[in-house]
Amino acid sequence: MSDLRGGIDLGGTKIQTAVIDTEGEVKGEARRPTPTEGGPQDVAAAMAEALVEAATGAGVESAELQGVGVGSPGDADEKTGIVSNAGNLPGWADGFPLGETLEKALGTKVRIGNDVTVATDAEYQLGAGKGFDSLIGVFWGTGVGGGLILGGKPWLGRGAAGEIGHMVVKRGGARCPCGRRGCMEAYAGRAAMEAEARRRQEDGEKTDLFKLMEKHDKPRLTSGVWERALEHGDKLAAELIDRAIEAIGTAVGSAINLLDPEAIIIGGGLGLRFGEPYMEPLLDEMRKHVFFETMPVVRVATLGDLGGAIGASLLVSR
Amino acid sequence: MSDLRGGIDLGGTKIQTAVIDTEGEVKGEARRPTPTEGGPQDVAAAMAEALVEAATGAGVESAELQGVGVGSPGDADEKTGIVSNAGNLPGWADGFPLGETLEKALGTKVRIGNDVTVATDAEYQLGAGKGFDSLIGVFWGTGVGGGLILGGKPWLGRGAAGEIGHMVVKRGGARCPCGRRGCMEAYAGRAAMEAEARRRQEDGEKTDLFKLMEKHDKPRLTSGVWERALEHGDKLAAELIDRAIEAIGTAVGSAINLLDPEAIIIGGGLGLRFGEPYMEPLLDEMRKHVFFETMPVVRVATLGDLGGAIGASLLVSR
Repeated sequence: MSDLRGGIDLGGTKIQTAVIDTEGEVKGEARRPTPTEGGPQDVAAAMAEALVEAATGAGVESAELQGVGVGSPGDADEKTGIVSNAGNLPGWADGFPLGETLEKALGTKVRIGNDVTVATDAEYQLGAGKGFDSLIGVFWGTGVGGGLILGGKPWLGRGAAGEIGHMVVKRGGARCPCGRRGCMEAYAGRAAMEAEARRRQEDGEKTDLFKLMEKHDKPRLTSGVWERALEHGDKLAAELIDRAIEAIGTAVGSAINLLDPEAIIIGGGLGLRFGEPYMEPLLDEMRKHVFFETMPVVRVATLGDLGGAIGASLLVSR
Repeated sequence: MSDLRGGIDLGGTKIQTAVIDTEGEVKGEARRPTPTEGGPQDVAAAMAEALVEAATGAGVESAELQGVGVGSPGDADEKTGIVSNAGNLPGWADGFPLGETLEKALGTKVRIGNDVTVATDAEYQLGAGKGFDSLIGVFWGTGVGGGLILGGKPWLGRGAAGEIGHMVVKRGGARCPCGRRGCMEAYAGRAAMEAEARRRQEDGEKTDLFKLMEKHDKPRLTSGVWERALEHGDKLAAELIDRAIEAIGTAVGSAINLLDPEAIIIGGGLGLRFGEPYMEPLLDEMRKHVFFETMPVVRVATLGDLGGAIGASLLVSR
């Protein structure tokens, strides 16, 4: 048995794995595209494959790991290892015993957790949130997820706390992918931004967003496509990013007024790319709403793309 | 020494005191109007007077109490007993050693806490929030204050958590008494509602609100005045109460999405009066925004006007 731990971040687009040592150093990593067809069995097989590759990179067999943690979308039951309602994954509405399946495939114990919760915990233990007693992780990507650390521990509420993307920024406002109105994610989520860009283009506004998407052979408006459009001076892209920043600043401002935390950590695909260049407008927007004289510290996540997998591996020591 | 504890709820309008036994039963109570002139010394003298009267009612001298707790507005420092920035109290911007002053006057130890935090703790320990591990107290009065219990303990953040009234419900919306825009309190706080009613009356809308206020010799639109106006079928009053309920439901919905708590407790002058009759519209508004399948329990506070004083007394046992 080694003293290494494995972590798997199961996303709608990719499966990212990492193997870390007791210091949190990454000793091996691998990624796979998430299967778009088949079912949970196929996804689990790809996850196992990627984890074995990361273990090999770290010089061990998967069975020699202390254990493997998984950060999962949908409803992840930490106790049973069953994952259900993973809407972005193929054929994964019903409960599937992901923990048990992976344990058999990998020959070591497997712990299942929520993807955003483990990514927040990773930043708290090893990243931008180190040293703070309370923080809110804001993961700005396809949707906008949130994780809470309060008093040095993850706060899960009845099990699903942290839905910062569904805090309301404008009563009666834009329709959110979740079906409700005026959620922050309705303005800031990548999926909602793409839908809005498409609507506006159809209404005659000019934009290179979709041309750039095709040119770079992307299936959707990735954060890279948004960045290139901004570099090209695309007006619509700039407007929609500004609109997203305003919505995030408003919702995070509300969250600060409620929780008065020490720090805010901005992660996720769009957050990692635009957090630094848009930090001042983001802070300005928060300041408009924050009730306290002293703002919390606001930082961009430092573990980058690997944060989810690293955080998942931390489930093993719990 | 008795086993009784004293509590003082220091409000902008009145000072409410209570003496409770180890079961939380009220054994004596008294109230005084809060002095509107003078300074902190005069307020402290009125507080001591009212507490002595409550102790007498309970059959003891104030010096025989286990101690006395104070729920205070402004910035209340639990460690030093100093209160500052109490904007609604006469001449109370600077720090005043309220704890020390009351200890001398009462002959027993005094603990100072935040008014909303202690009222929330009272409902959690002895009232509508009993038995829940996490809850949000929403105190709907002149402003809208909030208190959090998370994992069985008050959550204070960096010291000032719970500003639910300043969560944003409409970006760029109505101006709040705090100076910001679109806060829930801008729509739901008694002070903001009164200002809006006055503006609309000046703009030619009809209302009996101010006539009723004068008829009942009230200096402002109290919750009782609002109730009478509703009974008289006052259209403007009904509209503004509906608008307040919508704003509260939206902000509380956002707070639920972030914290996923077990319960919401509605208190405060307006909350105690309108919480029950408006429970269904309030729940409907929350449901529009809550991301989870299961709503938390929503209840009206059960300790009523005495909640603040009872909660203050609980500071003594900590």
